[in-house]
Amino acid sequence: MSRNKIINIGLIGAGRIGSFHAESVARRLVDANLAAIADPAPGAAERLAATLDCPVATTDPKELLANPDIDAVIIASPARFHAGLVEAAAEAGKGVFCEKPMALTLEEADRAIAAAKQAGVALQVGFNRRWDQAFAEGHAAITDGKVGTPQLLRSLTRDPGPYQGDPARTPQWTIFYETLIHDFDTLLWLNAGAKPVEVYAVADALIRPDFRDAGHLDTAVVTIRFDNGAIAVADANFSALYGYDVRGEVFGSAGMVTMGDVRRSSMTLFGAGGVSNDTWRLDAHHFVGAYTAQLAAFVESVRTGEVMGPTGSDARAALEIALACIQSIKDKAPVRIR
Amino acid sequence: MSRNKIINIGLIGAGRIGSFHAESVARRLVDANLAAIADPAPGAAERLAATLDCPVATTDPKELLANPDIDAVIIASPARFHAGLVEAAAEAGKGVFCEKPMALTLEEADRAIAAAKQAGVALQVGFNRRWDQAFAEGHAAITDGKVGTPQLLRSLTRDPGPYQGDPARTPQWTIFYETLIHDFDTLLWLNAGAKPVEVYAVADALIRPDFRDAGHLDTAVVTIRFDNGAIAVADANFSALYGYDVRGEVFGSAGMVTMGDVRRSSMTLFGAGGVSNDTWRLDAHHFVGAYTAQLAAFVESVRTGEVMGPTGSDARAALEIALACIQSIKDKAPVRIR
Amino acid sequence: MSRNKIINIGLIGAGRIGSFHAESVARRLVDANLAAIADPAPGAAERLAATLDCPVATTDPKELLANPDIDAVIIASPARFHAGLVEAAAEAGKGVFCEKPMALTLEEADRAIAAAKQAGVALQVGFNRRWDQAFAEGHAAITDGKVGTPQLLRSLTRDPGPYQGDPARTPQWTIFYETLIHDFDTLLWLNAGAKPVEVYAVADALIRPDFRDAGHLDTAVVTIRFDNGAIAVADANFSALYGYDVRGEVFGSAGMVTMGDVRRSSMTLFGAGGVSNDTWRLDAHHFVGAYTAQLAAFVESVRTGEVMGPTGSDARAALEIALACIQSIKDKAPVRIR
Amino acid sequence: MSRNKIINIGLIGAGRIGSFHAESVARRLVDANLAAIADPAPGAAERLAATLDCPVATTDPKELLANPDIDAVIIASPARFHAGLVEAAAEAGKGVFCEKPMALTLEEADRAIAAAKQAGVALQVGFNRRWDQAFAEGHAAITDGKVGTPQLLRSLTRDPGPYQGDPARTPQWTIFYETLIHDFDTLLWLNAGAKPVEVYAVADALIRPDFRDAGHLDTAVVTIRFDNGAIAVADANFSALYGYDVRGEVFGSAGMVTMGDVRRSSMTLFGAGGVSNDTWRLDAHHFVGAYTAQLAAFVESVRTGEVMGPTGSDARAALEIALACIQSIKDKAPVRIR
Repeated sequence: MSRNKIINIGLIGAGRIGSFHAESVARRLVDANLAAIADPAPGAAERLAATLDCPVATTDPKELLANPDIDAVIIASPARFHAGLVEAAAEAGKGVFCEKPMALTLEEADRAIAAAKQAGVALQVGFNRRWDQAFAEGHAAITDGKVGTPQLLRSLTRDPGPYQGDPARTPQWTIFYETLIHDFDTLLWLNAGAKPVEVYAVADALIRPDFRDAGHLDTAVVTIRFDNGAIAVADANFSALYGYDVRGEVFGSAGMVTMGDVRRSSMTLFGAGGVSNDTWRLDAHHFVGAYTAQLAAFVESVRTGEVMGPTGSDARAALEIALACIQSIKDKAPVRIR
Repeated sequence: MSRNKIINIGLIGAGRIGSFHAESVARRLVDANLAAIADPAPGAAERLAATLDCPVATTDPKELLANPDIDAVIIASPARFHAGLVEAAAEAGKGVFCEKPMALTLEEADRAIAAAKQAGVALQVGFNRRWDQAFAEGHAAITDGKVGTPQLLRSLTRDPGPYQGDPARTPQWTIFYETLIHDFDTLLWLNAGAKPVEVYAVADALIRPDFRDAGHLDTAVVTIRFDNGAIAVADANFSALYGYDVRGEVFGSAGMVTMGDVRRSSMTLFGAGGVSNDTWRLDAHHFVGAYTAQLAAFVESVRTGEVMGPTGSDARAALEIALACIQSIKDKAPVRIR
Repeated sequence: MSRNKIINIGLIGAGRIGSFHAESVARRLVDANLAAIADPAPGAAERLAATLDCPVATTDPKELLANPDIDAVIIASPARFHAGLVEAAAEAGKGVFCEKPMALTLEEADRAIAAAKQAGVALQVGFNRRWDQAFAEGHAAITDGKVGTPQLLRSLTRDPGPYQGDPARTPQWTIFYETLIHDFDTLLWLNAGAKPVEVYAVADALIRPDFRDAGHLDTAVVTIRFDNGAIAVADANFSALYGYDVRGEVFGSAGMVTMGDVRRSSMTLFGAGGVSNDTWRLDAHHFVGAYTAQLAAFVESVRTGEVMGPTGSDARAALEIALACIQSIKDKAPVRIR
Repeated sequence: MSRNKIINIGLIGAGRIGSFHAESVARRLVDANLAAIADPAPGAAERLAATLDCPVATTDPKELLANPDIDAVIIASPARFHAGLVEAAAEAGKGVFCEKPMALTLEEADRAIAAAKQAGVALQVGFNRRWDQAFAEGHAAITDGKVGTPQLLRSLTRDPGPYQGDPARTPQWTIFYETLIHDFDTLLWLNAGAKPVEVYAVADALIRPDFRDAGHLDTAVVTIRFDNGAIAVADANFSALYGYDVRGEVFGSAGMVTMGDVRRSSMTLFGAGGVSNDTWRLDAHHFVGAYTAQLAAFVESVRTGEVMGPTGSDARAALEIALACIQSIKDKAPVRIR
């Protein structure tokens, strides 16, 4: 447990989640140092660097990647740049933590994976639920055989409402690429070893029906069949008025595990209106432990070269389901995988 | 609250649920009298009549229907006889409580509904979940607008395991006709006023894969789209090792309600192995209150002529979804309704 | 399970709980008949009899006791008349169900017990928690050894608020005689076989401090030491704004059981204000099952002569603790028992 | 949020909790540095220093206190040395974090408080429950008036079993000085502003009755009356087979809050034996967040001079109750405070 060599980390993308990760590096990890921030938006990197005492800020990610003092990068740019940045960072010899989705096409994903392999650098993807205490315990119970063979699985993401997003600026398939991608990874991970064979997706604009014609989807339900017979359902919605609701359920031949509770703590209030519990309202609160743990593991991976968390291949597997969902929506029919 | 005229009830079908209903009439309802039992299986009616002090037992339902002292009947025969018996009972002027499914085809359902209407008799169907305290409270919350417009719904039935049934003697589509029919009614009731427009079903033989080729399905997941935009998922499995698990969830624009808990009571045991709760193992235990309440309401309906519970039309609506599921399985594609 | 001889029951005391018991006899028990009601308040018996179709109403309990058609009585008069009525009813050869407290002094209790024994009639006392599903399961777990030797016990009663009582008309020690008497019985029952050896009570007028000087106590905490070493705490308060809260906890050398939950059902509402559950607001709702079960058992006891529920001796044991509490309050010190 | 000056911390006492705090400083706090460890046991400081890469280890706390590079100390020695070490550290100008109990007599406590005041150094005490999420939320709800005026309070500590301690080496009053002291602080904090006026304690050797004669107490129940009328109960036991159980409850004129759950996470297993949850087995796991937060606050206090957590005066107030408990046990009677 001796204090290790400090890993110097550069952040690419100073948006919401990028800023949070930067804060984790600067304030919650003892073995890492926030060495540089890059964001093409004028002033964004500087502002974040100032609050976190980070010595380098730039608008050019290439400059950051060229910096020999930086051991590893966190990629938190808009999704469409992820795969290219993974490639570039790997080629620069940096360890890479990439936010989900790692790529938007299988070809991109394959190139990113190959680049990391070629460079021999760690490549970890931001599927943070794997690092949540309850989900990790559920996964362990499944691995220990406590539910037997999985038969019915469920994973859901209900983002905290009221929905504040701008549908006009949100890409059409965001609910699959960016939201349900978490659930697809969760289901693949919990149903370990099984491959998806068929996907059927339905989706609609129920929160903002005025954007239905523009193709903005805010509510979706996906059915996935796996090669071990298990049938999984994932659902998502962008506006849960009661908070940030993330749950999982695996039913099998020997039992069931459930994971996730929107209740924030055991503090329970009994008042004239009944019994009540406060809820998680932000992912940064609900998953602060998971977000920190995944970065701590990443830092360790950079040090050891051994990736302990979800890899580029995991990102590709989840993407494959997201792509099948999009095809299913277009076809209005189930889509075979492989 | 004065003690009312006693309603004389005849039971047709002395199987498991029929026997339970007979016991309810004899032992749990003060305003009803178990007047006769009919079951074609030699000795079945007699045996049940003896334990419940019922004066008349016969192998011929027609004899029971011809008895002028009988005000109403409970139909608990095998499902394929339900609709015909509803017709015959209605024509005999008896009030009718029919177990689900009330019919196996829409034509049968229509004839049964018409017969009851023609005869002016009460026709109530055994969708007992509507009478469960938690589900009734959830329905009331939805009706009060507490979840806003429903967007995502869930209903599930996991029968208590280990599965003891004989797949060879179970009709192929039982999981839809007899099990998920409850969930379809629950979803229609909770998403009040909305009509199903599209159904997609997947199903498999996961508990008894040796009967997959024979078409015996023991696990199913159904996606239903409604004309109010809501997307519902129902699932079922015949072998929940942990007990009899029935749950519902309605997520809407203003919140969510969940209903159902397999835990049997608030008694919680904290032992060396952790915290534990016993579970419901039998529908007759879990739903004793609901089963009794639905029959009490039926008895009242026979008295007043006004049906308070699920009607023949409700049975038809749930059947329509079950039939669409079967078509979807055959087509391997979503099926439009209407 | 054959339909038994109907037991004719007379009610003495048509107040709140008496009326509820009368309704149970008339509407919830198939083997009993509400044959007569007596209440000295002019019109009270008549009014209740009218709503329940009961043929006999009188202002004179003696008249009721003299009625040879009556097999058994329910005593629900004010507490100070209980013991005398038990004696009189026993002498009249009636089975007796007596509300708690059965007596206000040990001498009265002894006379009542002796009278029932002498007459050979069933004597059961209204400690309804023993018939509650969760408490009964907890008791069974303890009896099965699942918590080992009890070491710390807790029982509490929080009556639903806001407090509507009239302190000026409530006897000073009501919180011990009428409220905590339930908890004392519960603790004696759960810590089976152990005898109380020392009692320390504190109490105050916290809801209505304006009645403190008049000695009206609305909040109390009692510590009881038992001869098996276990230490129990009981508490009570007359004004729980969140509902009717009754709980028990037994911690022992091998584990713990907890029983009781003010939440009304599994229906859970997730709204903008958090997660919430409705609560039990009335004992008649929370304990409808327990109240009915205890009377069903009593009816069976009248038939068989074997008392299955709490007896006169149980009532005496709980009373002994209540009396020690009062002495402890007066002494401002712990009080030894025996 | 800029990275602050690193605070150099010395640890005195390399036992279980001391080692945990050292690890927190070294591995979980970014703004602190573990600069030295002192423990009189030969080799203890060295061994811990080696695992945590701490540059200085000594058997002499005075040497540590004389080190001008050290800004603050954590005192985790046996309890009887606490107060003297607080004094010495304060006199050396170090900020002081002292484990509970800060002192064993009021005189010691007063000297320690005076020394810190005199020296103008931060003095914080290790009542970690105040930093737990659920307890902090409960405190906030009470402060916000959500339970009205507190009337009944409860706090309990059940240490994880089976009991592994050596009663022969455990001081007689440990259950009050070291265990229930947490509950006394919790009750004082939750019942903010109120002063204890009377204490009654009962205790016994129920886990190890063979040590009863030696005065080793392993189970205790304490009743505390406060000057706002509230009545509190605290209980403790050294051997909860089901885990580390810490709970609080505050019932007041407007409602109730409860805090604490021995269940470890939302992961729930549904198996053939029922529904089950794993439990907290170690304080270091249950309270890792609280332990870290209290040290982070202490580090900040050293920097700013403003103590945000429980102070020496808080420690004295809790000690006063512990001393009253001991007197009550000796007197077999309630004891007045003040």
